Amino acid sequence: MKDKIAVIGVGHTEFGELWDSSWIDLVEEAGLGALEDASIKKKDIDKFFLGNMSLGMFGGQEHTASKVFSEVFSGGPDSHVLGRRIEGACSSGGLALEASFNDILAGIHHGQDKIIMAGGFEKMTDKPTDEATKILSAASDMGKEMGFTFPALYGIIKDRYIEETGAEEEDFDYIAVKSHKNASLNSRAQYSFEVSHSKVKDSFKVASPTKLLNSSGIADGAAAVIMTTVRKAEEIGTDYVVLEDVQGVNDSIALFEREDILTLVSTKRAADMVYRSTGFGPEDVDIAEVHDCFSIAEILALEDLGFYPKREGWKWIKKSLSGCEEMDGPIPYKLPGGKNLFVNTSGGLKAKGHPVGATGIAQVVEVVEQLSGRAGDRQVPDAKVGITHNVGGSGGTAVVSLLTKPDGVS
Amino acid sequence: MKDKIAVIGVGHTEFGELWDSSWIDLVEEAGLGALEDASIKKKDIDKFFLGNMSLGMFGGQEHTASKVFSEVFSGGPDSHVLGRRIEGACSSGGLALEASFNDILAGIHHGQDKIIMAGGFEKMTDKPTDEATKILSAASDMGKEMGFTFPALYGIIKDRYIEETGAEEEDFDYIAVKSHKNASLNSRAQYSFEVSHSKVKDSFKVASPTKLLNSSGIADGAAAVIMTTVRKAEEIGTDYVVLEDVQGVNDSIALFEREDILTLVSTKRAADMVYRSTGFGPEDVDIAEVHDCFSIAEILALEDLGFYPKREGWKWIKKSLSGCEEMDGPIPYKLPGGKNLFVNTSGGLKAKGHPVGATGIAQVVEVVEQLSGRAGDRQVPDAKVGITHNVGGSGGTAVVSLLTKPDGVS
Repeated sequence: MKDKIAVIGVGHTEFGELWDSSWIDLVEEAGLGALEDASIKKKDIDKFFLGNMSLGMFGGQEHTASKVFSEVFSGGPDSHVLGRRIEGACSSGGLALEASFNDILAGIHHGQDKIIMAGGFEKMTDKPTDEATKILSAASDMGKEMGFTFPALYGIIKDRYIEETGAEEEDFDYIAVKSHKNASLNSRAQYSFEVSHSKVKDSFKVASPTKLLNSSGIADGAAAVIMTTVRKAEEIGTDYVVLEDVQGVNDSIALFEREDILTLVSTKRAADMVYRSTGFGPEDVDIAEVHDCFSIAEILALEDLGFYPKREGWKWIKKSLSGCEEMDGPIPYKLPGGKNLFVNTSGGLKAKGHPVGATGIAQVVEVVEQLSGRAGDRQVPDAKVGITHNVGGSGGTAVVSLLTKPDGVS
Repeated sequence: MKDKIAVIGVGHTEFGELWDSSWIDLVEEAGLGALEDASIKKKDIDKFFLGNMSLGMFGGQEHTASKVFSEVFSGGPDSHVLGRRIEGACSSGGLALEASFNDILAGIHHGQDKIIMAGGFEKMTDKPTDEATKILSAASDMGKEMGFTFPALYGIIKDRYIEETGAEEEDFDYIAVKSHKNASLNSRAQYSFEVSHSKVKDSFKVASPTKLLNSSGIADGAAAVIMTTVRKAEEIGTDYVVLEDVQGVNDSIALFEREDILTLVSTKRAADMVYRSTGFGPEDVDIAEVHDCFSIAEILALEDLGFYPKREGWKWIKKSLSGCEEMDGPIPYKLPGGKNLFVNTSGGLKAKGHPVGATGIAQVVEVVEQLSGRAGDRQVPDAKVGITHNVGGSGGTAVVSLLTKPDGVS
């Protein structure tokens, strides 16, 4: 137990169009927030890993970590901090989490309990939307999928899903209604308001059949978590949540190279590895933050993570969410065994916002707050096991983590 | 010993203006070369870490690792490979090495002997030189050093060095003569030819006092190394060199924030950590690949790594290299104790070439080849201990590694 990894602090900026802040302001706010939450100081940090997709194209700055060191961590004459930026498109945050996790394990092997910050950020709204869309398309295969935007790629997947399953377009739209309802309870969310089913249904088509309100938007934001060993967390005397495991897997970057475009093999494999190593299964999970960059992505995620049989997620979503406009949030999905599963209580990428490099870490922040009873109006009752699911591109990378509330669970 | 980290294979493309190759071609060539050298197959790789400064700005592609997975590693139905890109400006390669090292240690903690590829690459010559120079300046502080190119930043350092020490400009020029002489023995080098001292001395000033032939150029290239545990290397039955340790440290990104611009604190601290953990000191080192992006940088590196007293490197360099035009390469430096130290036998960044993300890994390739007696015309006699030194920007990051020949050394 002492050798397990503990998340001892979290920080999270508002997500949205934050024109008053630079990218470094956002990293500083999230980072210092996490340090304060963990009751530690800058000088206590051994390393930091920052998930970010494209500060080069969005902000013209590379050598990201040295700049962050200068502005945030610069720790005086004895400083020995090492940072770096991790790039894996929209899964950059998840990959920073995974790297941090393993770096702490490496420390344990040498008898050291390192304290590491895993952060993520993106500053996207300083570019016009069409330019931001073009930069985001760099997460697809720029040699072979050129000209496709992500709404178009996910539109192809949605078309195929409808064709194979008989789902109807309006079934997908309930997901957005649910996510906005959750986001309306989250003051940090970019779109912290409710939307009606008819509003989603009638929103314009960005890349048919993907509609505006099936899509996450362009956003600025940053998130950070402080991680160490359980041993060190107890020595510091701070509360913590256990990060039981985090695994990532790659798949081909281009859709046409996949055997089945309705399965994100990367998600399935990463989840299988996490379930196997932790002994927990989908039936144990109370809350999940999944990568819903588009409504169809949330359905695929719930199937690939093992909550629903493949190609049947839509039926359960329909069953769970029909009439959800009238319910109070947060609104759960019903699982086949009858259990409630709360998905994207934060509002998800759709409504909380998706500053791409921040997302994988922001998901962990939400799960940690839920498991430690600090989620305010969004609080889910008795949550003990949570997972996060962060995707790069259209599934070329997926990272899955599993977290538990320490008392009486693991 | 079994838990030590072994480098079991190396791959290295030609460095230069490689207009026939795309970035992915280069990564593939270096990666498959390293696999072949290690006598293993694609499917044996557990993870890969790729150092790259700015594929976004140079090539418009992010989600680098998924693209590499598609083209290089795609391993069939059971694939569980995870890759990611690591960005730390010109130290991206060194940071990929450091991450790979720690990931293997994390595996050992869980009773697993992972096989990891650490690679690095940059494809720079597809952009006009002035645009490439602008992209490279993103490794400096884009908010506070805007308008400075790297030849200018290192020119400021050189000016200061001359002012404080009494060194003369032509002393620096011997370094380029030595590096080109070494590169003339290296068929992979971008500038595989000799230059005379007068040619260096008379080359035009790029940013006074930095002259063209004091500077590394714009280049394309990739390098890769395969790493695992000594236990696994012996199980595979392949030759190996021991990577004893690798450490990195950040410093402030902007020059004006430094107490002494003639000391790269990041280099000093990283080297101290490596010397402390391995028990080796500068007096034990036979060969070093140091980050000589400009001639002045090689002097600072030799001082900061502990080979020469601070502000005295130039005297020793003068003593070692005066008249070196007439000597046969590789040409060593004399150390204060009388020992020979061979520096940048590859030709260094100056003459082998500096495709920025590749450099930190290419340095390891050179040291591994030297320690295993495979350096051909450049072979140094009886080399047993080597170090690599990779810098980001003007010292905002530094990564130092120490490698040994396994027989009778460690």
